[in-house]
Amino acid sequence: MSRVPTALWKNLIAVQVYGANTGVGKTVFSTLLGSHFSRKIAKTKWDLRYIKPVSTGPIDEADDGYFSRYTGANADTLFQFKKAVSPHVAARDSGRIPSDNDIVQKLYSKLSEIATRRCSQENSIGLAIVETAGGVLSPGPSGVPQADLFRPLRMPVVLVGDHRLGGIASTISATESLILRGYDIAGVVCFDDKGKYENSNYLRNYFEEREIAAFEIPWIPDLSDCTTETEIEKMRAYYLEESDSDGLHNIAGQLIDQHATRLENLSKMAKKTSESIWHPFTQHKNRKSSDEILVFDSAYGDYFQTKHTAQSNGGSKGNTNNAILYPAFDGSASWWTQGLGHGNPKLALAAAYAAGRYGHVMFAGATNEPAVALAQRLLQGLENPRLARCFYTDDGSTAAEVGIKMALRASCKRYGWDGSSTEVGILGLKGSYHGDTIGAMDASEPCTYNKKVDWYRGRGHWFDFPTVKMRQGQWIVEPSAGMEQVFGETSRYRTLDDVFEFEKRRQNPRYREYITEQLNTLVKEQGKAFGALVMEPIILGAGGMLFVDPLFQRTFVEIVREYDFVESTAHPKDPKAWSGLPVVFDEVFTGLYRLGRFSSASFLETHPDISIHAKLLTGGLLPLSATLASESIFEAFLSNEVADALLHGHSYTAHPIGCHVGNVSLKAMEELSHSYAWQDYLKDWQGEVASTFDQPHVETPKKTTKKCIWSMWSQRTANEISYHPLVDHVIAIGSVLVVSLKDDHGSGYTSKAALGLRDALLRDRIGQNIHIHSRVLGNTIYLMASMTSAPSDLATIESAFMDQLKAMVDGS
Amino acid sequence: MSRVPTALWKNLIAVQVYGANTGVGKTVFSTLLGSHFSRKIAKTKWDLRYIKPVSTGPIDEADDGYFSRYTGANADTLFQFKKAVSPHVAARDSGRIPSDNDIVQKLYSKLSEIATRRCSQENSIGLAIVETAGGVLSPGPSGVPQADLFRPLRMPVVLVGDHRLGGIASTISATESLILRGYDIAGVVCFDDKGKYENSNYLRNYFEEREIAAFEIPWIPDLSDCTTETEIEKMRAYYLEESDSDGLHNIAGQLIDQHATRLENLSKMAKKTSESIWHPFTQHKNRKSSDEILVFDSAYGDYFQTKHTAQSNGGSKGNTNNAILYPAFDGSASWWTQGLGHGNPKLALAAAYAAGRYGHVMFAGATNEPAVALAQRLLQGLENPRLARCFYTDDGSTAAEVGIKMALRASCKRYGWDGSSTEVGILGLKGSYHGDTIGAMDASEPCTYNKKVDWYRGRGHWFDFPTVKMRQGQWIVEPSAGMEQVFGETSRYRTLDDVFEFEKRRQNPRYREYITEQLNTLVKEQGKAFGALVMEPIILGAGGMLFVDPLFQRTFVEIVREYDFVESTAHPKDPKAWSGLPVVFDEVFTGLYRLGRFSSASFLETHPDISIHAKLLTGGLLPLSATLASESIFEAFLSNEVADALLHGHSYTAHPIGCHVGNVSLKAMEELSHSYAWQDYLKDWQGEVASTFDQPHVETPKKTTKKCIWSMWSQRTANEISYHPLVDHVIAIGSVLVVSLKDDHGSGYTSKAALGLRDALLRDRIGQNIHIHSRVLGNTIYLMASMTSAPSDLATIESAFMDQLKAMVDGS
Repeated sequence: MSRVPTALWKNLIAVQVYGANTGVGKTVFSTLLGSHFSRKIAKTKWDLRYIKPVSTGPIDEADDGYFSRYTGANADTLFQFKKAVSPHVAARDSGRIPSDNDIVQKLYSKLSEIATRRCSQENSIGLAIVETAGGVLSPGPSGVPQADLFRPLRMPVVLVGDHRLGGIASTISATESLILRGYDIAGVVCFDDKGKYENSNYLRNYFEEREIAAFEIPWIPDLSDCTTETEIEKMRAYYLEESDSDGLHNIAGQLIDQHATRLENLSKMAKKTSESIWHPFTQHKNRKSSDEILVFDSAYGDYFQTKHTAQSNGGSKGNTNNAILYPAFDGSASWWTQGLGHGNPKLALAAAYAAGRYGHVMFAGATNEPAVALAQRLLQGLENPRLARCFYTDDGSTAAEVGIKMALRASCKRYGWDGSSTEVGILGLKGSYHGDTIGAMDASEPCTYNKKVDWYRGRGHWFDFPTVKMRQGQWIVEPSAGMEQVFGETSRYRTLDDVFEFEKRRQNPRYREYITEQLNTLVKEQGKAFGALVMEPIILGAGGMLFVDPLFQRTFVEIVREYDFVESTAHPKDPKAWSGLPVVFDEVFTGLYRLGRFSSASFLETHPDISIHAKLLTGGLLPLSATLASESIFEAFLSNEVADALLHGHSYTAHPIGCHVGNVSLKAMEELSHSYAWQDYLKDWQGEVASTFDQPHVETPKKTTKKCIWSMWSQRTANEISYHPLVDHVIAIGSVLVVSLKDDHGSGYTSKAALGLRDALLRDRIGQNIHIHSRVLGNTIYLMASMTSAPSDLATIESAFMDQLKAMVDGS
Repeated sequence: MSRVPTALWKNLIAVQVYGANTGVGKTVFSTLLGSHFSRKIAKTKWDLRYIKPVSTGPIDEADDGYFSRYTGANADTLFQFKKAVSPHVAARDSGRIPSDNDIVQKLYSKLSEIATRRCSQENSIGLAIVETAGGVLSPGPSGVPQADLFRPLRMPVVLVGDHRLGGIASTISATESLILRGYDIAGVVCFDDKGKYENSNYLRNYFEEREIAAFEIPWIPDLSDCTTETEIEKMRAYYLEESDSDGLHNIAGQLIDQHATRLENLSKMAKKTSESIWHPFTQHKNRKSSDEILVFDSAYGDYFQTKHTAQSNGGSKGNTNNAILYPAFDGSASWWTQGLGHGNPKLALAAAYAAGRYGHVMFAGATNEPAVALAQRLLQGLENPRLARCFYTDDGSTAAEVGIKMALRASCKRYGWDGSSTEVGILGLKGSYHGDTIGAMDASEPCTYNKKVDWYRGRGHWFDFPTVKMRQGQWIVEPSAGMEQVFGETSRYRTLDDVFEFEKRRQNPRYREYITEQLNTLVKEQGKAFGALVMEPIILGAGGMLFVDPLFQRTFVEIVREYDFVESTAHPKDPKAWSGLPVVFDEVFTGLYRLGRFSSASFLETHPDISIHAKLLTGGLLPLSATLASESIFEAFLSNEVADALLHGHSYTAHPIGCHVGNVSLKAMEELSHSYAWQDYLKDWQGEVASTFDQPHVETPKKTTKKCIWSMWSQRTANEISYHPLVDHVIAIGSVLVVSLKDDHGSGYTSKAALGLRDALLRDRIGQNIHIHSRVLGNTIYLMASMTSAPSDLATIESAFMDQLKAMVDGS
């Protein structure tokens, strides 16, 4: 539904007229505005159209006819319902309820048609007045408030204020409802009642202070004694006389100026960005032109509204009419953050509530309701009996630093190390990544990301591990290159579920032996000190979307917890206390429903001592992170000395906006996890056995298990892609689809194998009018859905992805 | 104005009835609700009051009389205006306009009086129905919308929905306006029109989905054919019959439950916090009871609404009636973040707009309007011709890490060092602090904050410096302990301005000699490598609010820029290029108007190569930070290799909410900087020479200078405090007032000298009914104002501070 372009064209101003209430004079204003522009036609080639998307009441009294009568311009009603009540009641009673998507698409098509006609006439510009029904949030036919229904088109709004008693309040509130849905307000207009209630005067001042243009519109003539004919005559005179009055002149000028400014801003934004912004993770020398910078006008649902460039519409059929914007699927979930869709009005309102109730309030020595509620929600949701305490920071990297500080202090204290003189390292996996601050970087092995960071000092040891992948329709567990001797040959599984059958797979002692031997070498032979085991459960994200064999991670935890890192130090008896080393799970990417479950640790059926969360924590709205720890970790910081405390704390620690949005988001995602859509995803993956693809080497028999691993991406598509000749392997789990391409020149971060596909997807190379924005990690390209993505929309994206992938072979 | 407690008492439910519009039946609903509760009086000792704070129209038609007639309960109108128009027009025309503060205080007093009466009766509970005029945002007498006017009292709201055509829209919008002002909605009620427009039905479903209670209220009888008498009879029957109908029963139950829940949440929050939260910068073992945790119900303006504890009202006269909350001045500006007041509706709406327009959108390879606008605003505002690029991160610590990474890479590249093998340090000042992540910590000398951080490795050298302070009414520049030989004896200045007269003070070559000698020893003799000069301009915050002699900082920069850190490497000729070492200014605390100016570097009249900003960047709402760099720094990262780029980037980089709120905040603060209040502060400090205090050692003559250094805290108070026997010295600059107490046991972070004063201020030890929340840094206590603080309010706080300080001597 949100895959419709924003209604913005070079030579068509499409403006939406909303009313602060019903009966405030929307149609009179629209007609005044129309009259104003129709007069201009002769001089400056203005072309005029009026559209009423949804109208209720008798057709002969409809607003389109009224508009045409006085302006002579064409007017259309897209959906007409006879009963003169709210559209949702009228539509229901009529027995035919058009979907929101129908309405938005039909309106866009109509506007697009007008823009196309304009396009053929040189130096001509059009004005389309789109008049809504009732107030800003009056329900449309489906019952969804109009301002939500039309949001994907994000047209500039003229709000007709309410001139009546009480109208100041309703006008401001209506404006606020539009603003919190991300609308730009071209102007608020209000009929000047010549001193009766003075609303127009008040509103002009009020909005001026808030930089919203507001204008007074000439009062409507008294028609109380008129016959139909004298009424028409009187109104004709009114429109003739007043359509060029100051108020009209000003709002018209404002519409023209704002349109021009919006176009200019959009056209200059890439250049301004290129001149003033230092982009994250970007080699700026590789940028050949500022046109490479994607300009986002806005975003809604799973789609960015992106500015067309010469490149973007190369293959697209969608831009024959100078459309400025196109929707692009946010395939990286904006760096793995999105869960509930862009421009989500519930989250916007939640953020506003906490801002209005608190702003930010001090957290040290204090507390606020959203922060405590979120801590408790996390502790409950993680279902990890070890975890007891929540420490808030701002992002995944700071949360990782806190987790590392916690773990190191606990182990240094127990084992009697002085961290300032002893080099205490961490144990981890090759390819792990925990953030960009130096402490978080130090917890990863040397790699492209950190090798030019002058203060980077990798502190620890990182283990090889086998990975899980689907290759040619087959789930396999494959040893890393050169490790076949250690881990054994590639093993094959009927389903992904079978990979997680730990008890069944346990016979193989290779992991246990390998890890123990490695530890013996490091600790007993080389005398190294380690203070924590730090891992991302299931998938190493930044490391290239590596799906770690869960049995390996599980075994690693078990052995570390049994291992004597310092001889003759007894392991604690409390089953909730950390043992061996504190186990730190970095769930920043994998947690909070990214892989379909609240906690990615749950896949491993093991409980870390410290758990790190960020990204989806706010549903994708704003930065916040949490590091949860066990009481046994917490106790390591208790002492009579202030200096022994965890002396860490950012200014905005536990900011109420983030925490409240976090509570609202987690609750929403929890509800989604019980939705029909999610049940269908699960069913799709449970039916994997019914695949038509050949699966020759399956030995493990399929059995019914509760812990089905599933994805929002269909198993059919995953299967199909995995057979593609350019594809090395595929991973699909939760909202994540990973496609790893073959690259003869190596598969690391610097591989360029996936760039061609990425560009083809974005630029719609084969012209199917679907644009997909994606990110690559070396030879790997991935897609991520939101928790709210519509299954039908994902099917469309999958199909477009397949088509582009196929075209790559055909074209190569 | 915001120093009024939130209207919450144990045994009085004070509920505010708002209307979705005028004419929706607020008074009928209030009377129904009153009737419902008045019936209950007999059984459960419900006492009932009705208050109309502001009423317009003839007195004999006023709502209070109506309410009393049907309920028999007392009813009051606080401010009555004759003309039947909006209160702002009626008040203006009446010639007497009560201030918002008058209205709020009078209403609070009235409610407090009722609560006090209730208090004396065991097991009795009161209901006060406060009915507003018109719609939610109808202007009050001063013109301020009612929902803003009454916000400090933050009463639970019952919103009477609009049952008329268009009423769905106005009801939802009105609700949203309340929510974004931080109100809790007890319920939305709507008269059931029995199927005409079905608003009540729609609204019930709509709000249920959003977890807002919504109820249908029985339709009002048709009174069209009634005489005055039959109307009264009919309505009496209506109230009698319908006041116990389901809708009323439910909304009444909801009010009672919500009140109980709010009290329970508040009473349990400290314990829950104590059980689940790991607080920042806190030695939890020092916490004797969870009662020590301050529970904030909300915040508004400069005040927290804090839960009373046994301790808090020990000396206070303010809590004789079981008031639950008291306002406490946010004296640390919530860890130095606040600039525009808590619960600021403009910022809440700005946050909501960006959330509605974008949510968060990907920034790598892309751009959005708020992010570019903020970058340009910062680059312009800093007025530093060197700076050209903006890199966004999430907090001061991450921004410092980025600044350090930038500087080190630039210097390592120019000087040919391999940072992974060469130990490249930074130059700085003793007591500096740049954040809690390990890279930022490594840029500070060993101290309490980092000594137990196992991975901390101080990398650099930190210089001694003289400090500026006011002692006994005299501004002095004092060498650090033991450095008198090097820096010379304490020098005295007539005014703070004179300390900044760099040209005049330049004769003394001691700083230049000292710094050069130190560098020679470190670089030439010891062969150490340094990659950056990193300093907080003017005040070292976390280091204990040390006011560095600005001449020392300026000289340090000059020398570093001339110095040959590697022999025979020529300094660049481009005046904007970095020279010697990149100069990094950490303005996280001191910048963006905290000290009264956009940039604290401007006090030094010098231009860093890298400038770090956070905290006030969003006016105090949510985390965002920016590291600005020169083109010459940026160029050090350009190469054909991706690995040479600055591979740093947090998930929410340049999140549109933060950037948009940043733009709105910086603009608001810029406007305030031209306000009368700020001009008055300036005048106050220009008149410092007129002080009545003895200033014996002044040698520098006073001259008129444009660059007057001033504070929002009065020079009279600063002076007076500086003479206090317990006080070592005072600093006042911009919004900051620092009071350093004498401590015979040392002055570091672990000093306890200031704790007594801090506790006395919060607990209102001397019972003046003013509570001040403050933070201490060892022996130093400080207060910070917001940019929007009312001068009269600051005067009250100053006076309360002085009184508590005086009482400490009297009491000791």
